[in-house]
Amino acid sequence: MSELRKDPVTEHWVVIAPERGSFPWPMPAEEPSAPDELNPFVEGHEAFTPPELWAVRAPGTAPNTPGWSVRVVPNRFPALRVEGELAPAGVGVFDQINGIGAHEVIVESPDASMDWPDMGPGQLQRVLLAYSDRIRDLRHDVRLRYHTVFRCHGRAAGATLSHPLSQLVGLPIIPPLPMAKLRSARTHFRAKERCLFADLIAQEQRLEKRVVLQSERFIVLAPYASRSPFELVIYPLRQCHDIVLMSDDERFELASVLIKVLGRLRTALNDPPYHLQLFTAPNTTPRPGRTDMWSSLEVDYRWHLEILPQLGPPGGFAAATGCFVNPVPPEEATAYLRGLNGGSA
Amino acid sequence: MSELRKDPVTEHWVVIAPERGSFPWPMPAEEPSAPDELNPFVEGHEAFTPPELWAVRAPGTAPNTPGWSVRVVPNRFPALRVEGELAPAGVGVFDQINGIGAHEVIVESPDASMDWPDMGPGQLQRVLLAYSDRIRDLRHDVRLRYHTVFRCHGRAAGATLSHPLSQLVGLPIIPPLPMAKLRSARTHFRAKERCLFADLIAQEQRLEKRVVLQSERFIVLAPYASRSPFELVIYPLRQCHDIVLMSDDERFELASVLIKVLGRLRTALNDPPYHLQLFTAPNTTPRPGRTDMWSSLEVDYRWHLEILPQLGPPGGFAAATGCFVNPVPPEEATAYLRGLNGGSA
Repeated sequence: MSELRKDPVTEHWVVIAPERGSFPWPMPAEEPSAPDELNPFVEGHEAFTPPELWAVRAPGTAPNTPGWSVRVVPNRFPALRVEGELAPAGVGVFDQINGIGAHEVIVESPDASMDWPDMGPGQLQRVLLAYSDRIRDLRHDVRLRYHTVFRCHGRAAGATLSHPLSQLVGLPIIPPLPMAKLRSARTHFRAKERCLFADLIAQEQRLEKRVVLQSERFIVLAPYASRSPFELVIYPLRQCHDIVLMSDDERFELASVLIKVLGRLRTALNDPPYHLQLFTAPNTTPRPGRTDMWSSLEVDYRWHLEILPQLGPPGGFAAATGCFVNPVPPEEATAYLRGLNGGSA
Repeated sequence: MSELRKDPVTEHWVVIAPERGSFPWPMPAEEPSAPDELNPFVEGHEAFTPPELWAVRAPGTAPNTPGWSVRVVPNRFPALRVEGELAPAGVGVFDQINGIGAHEVIVESPDASMDWPDMGPGQLQRVLLAYSDRIRDLRHDVRLRYHTVFRCHGRAAGATLSHPLSQLVGLPIIPPLPMAKLRSARTHFRAKERCLFADLIAQEQRLEKRVVLQSERFIVLAPYASRSPFELVIYPLRQCHDIVLMSDDERFELASVLIKVLGRLRTALNDPPYHLQLFTAPNTTPRPGRTDMWSSLEVDYRWHLEILPQLGPPGGFAAATGCFVNPVPPEEATAYLRGLNGGSA
């Protein structure tokens, strides 16, 4: 079983997951993309994945057969597993928890060559529905305190298959990056009785120079402190702390916005590798004997999606400090992206 | 001028440095390593760098001529510059500081092919002396609150030249990663009146299974919560918060230890790319009107070096959460490295 370990000096967490790979020596050569015959995620290959957990299917088709448009399956090489006990323990100065969690793959299309800018908004709407439905279902397991959805596009962003996929991981902790956001939001609200995200969005709407795109219900910004060139963040304009509360109409509109901005990004940077990341509310399902620390989320937090292009090897300075270096001011990225067309929407 | 910007949600900092590069579209192709004729850091090419700031030279040789064994020069494309005013400002919800700082290159050898495991301990001792001397000198500029030294080995770790180099950056802030360490150390000491690092080292010495190597005055550990396979950390065994307090004898011994462990790492992983990072005390030189927040460093903090192999593309899960995934338990890495020989020391 894998194990979650916490560093007492930096407070970072690590999943020590020996099952995820063998010793990396000699260094593995890069593998070519799998041809369709070896790709477990194309239509007709349903038997090569673990049984499906969720799918949008044509009427009358049976689970684990063709006829689906979006399909969610367990990860065959999970970093965390649902079986077992959490068994949290102090090991001297260290903290340890067994590697309990969920690790699912959201297969976004039966077609390996279909990327988000190529999809119709209806298809991407169903992918976003999978995010919400799976998170809502997994929250019944009260051991899991946070659910993250991420998407790796391009080999340099860690994608090992070229099939359009998202991954969902449920964790028995709130990990450092979402924790920092939740804390900032709560601190800001306590001090000012205003939502940090509402303040930030209002300021960006006034200044305009970092607003890449705005629709009726969503806004796309190039963040003021962008860590990489052409970083983007997408917020709902209405106060909403949790992605599972999105309506079907909102999902359709968000899908159209994503198709548009990812199409422009593809044009601007010649199909760059990127990470897409969802940040939403933690699991607040009550647990026996615990009081909820996150009772003000509805007013202080706002869910969002981040898109982080991966344009070079990791920098030594950023690795040593946690302070990033970005040669492209977000104002320039915004001006460039505004002038482009892209995406089928 | 570049600009430091702070994100109000995650509290990360970014150097927005347009001078560091042009727009990255189309994506730059990988450049081949520079041949010696185009390498400004080999002996005889002193005129191709800015004037030297520090050097160890043969008696009778003039600055900026051949005859040096270690040489420090300003970075020609600095992320931060010493000229100008800090001008810290609040910009609505954002924080901004002008890009004031120092950015120097420590040329570790006149020979481009000489890596640390190939050096004699005397040569590496001089490199470590350069770290100390340059940090001590730069601390006279009280605007700079923290100095980081890092080293990128291998193209996949961001090295753009194959010449053995370290970089030193002085910053007008204490950046997030050292700040987290300083805070943990202070919190632990206040609660327990013991040094966190002393507790951690004592525990590892008792357990032994993560002790890769120990000399009279230094210990090399595979950290309990290693973020990557074969991560290593090196601590002095005596309580010491600041690398500039190392004696010549200690530098010689540390050089021997580094040559040994980096030689073993080269053998174990076939010359892996890695980041090497120094963590030491911040600049506590008094500033007018400010009281020092770090008055207990001498008892609560300990300087250290970290070695972080870069064995794959960045993971989407780690990017989305700040929680890493590592398939090799540090106990296995330790057992493997203990069984190897390596390095000239």
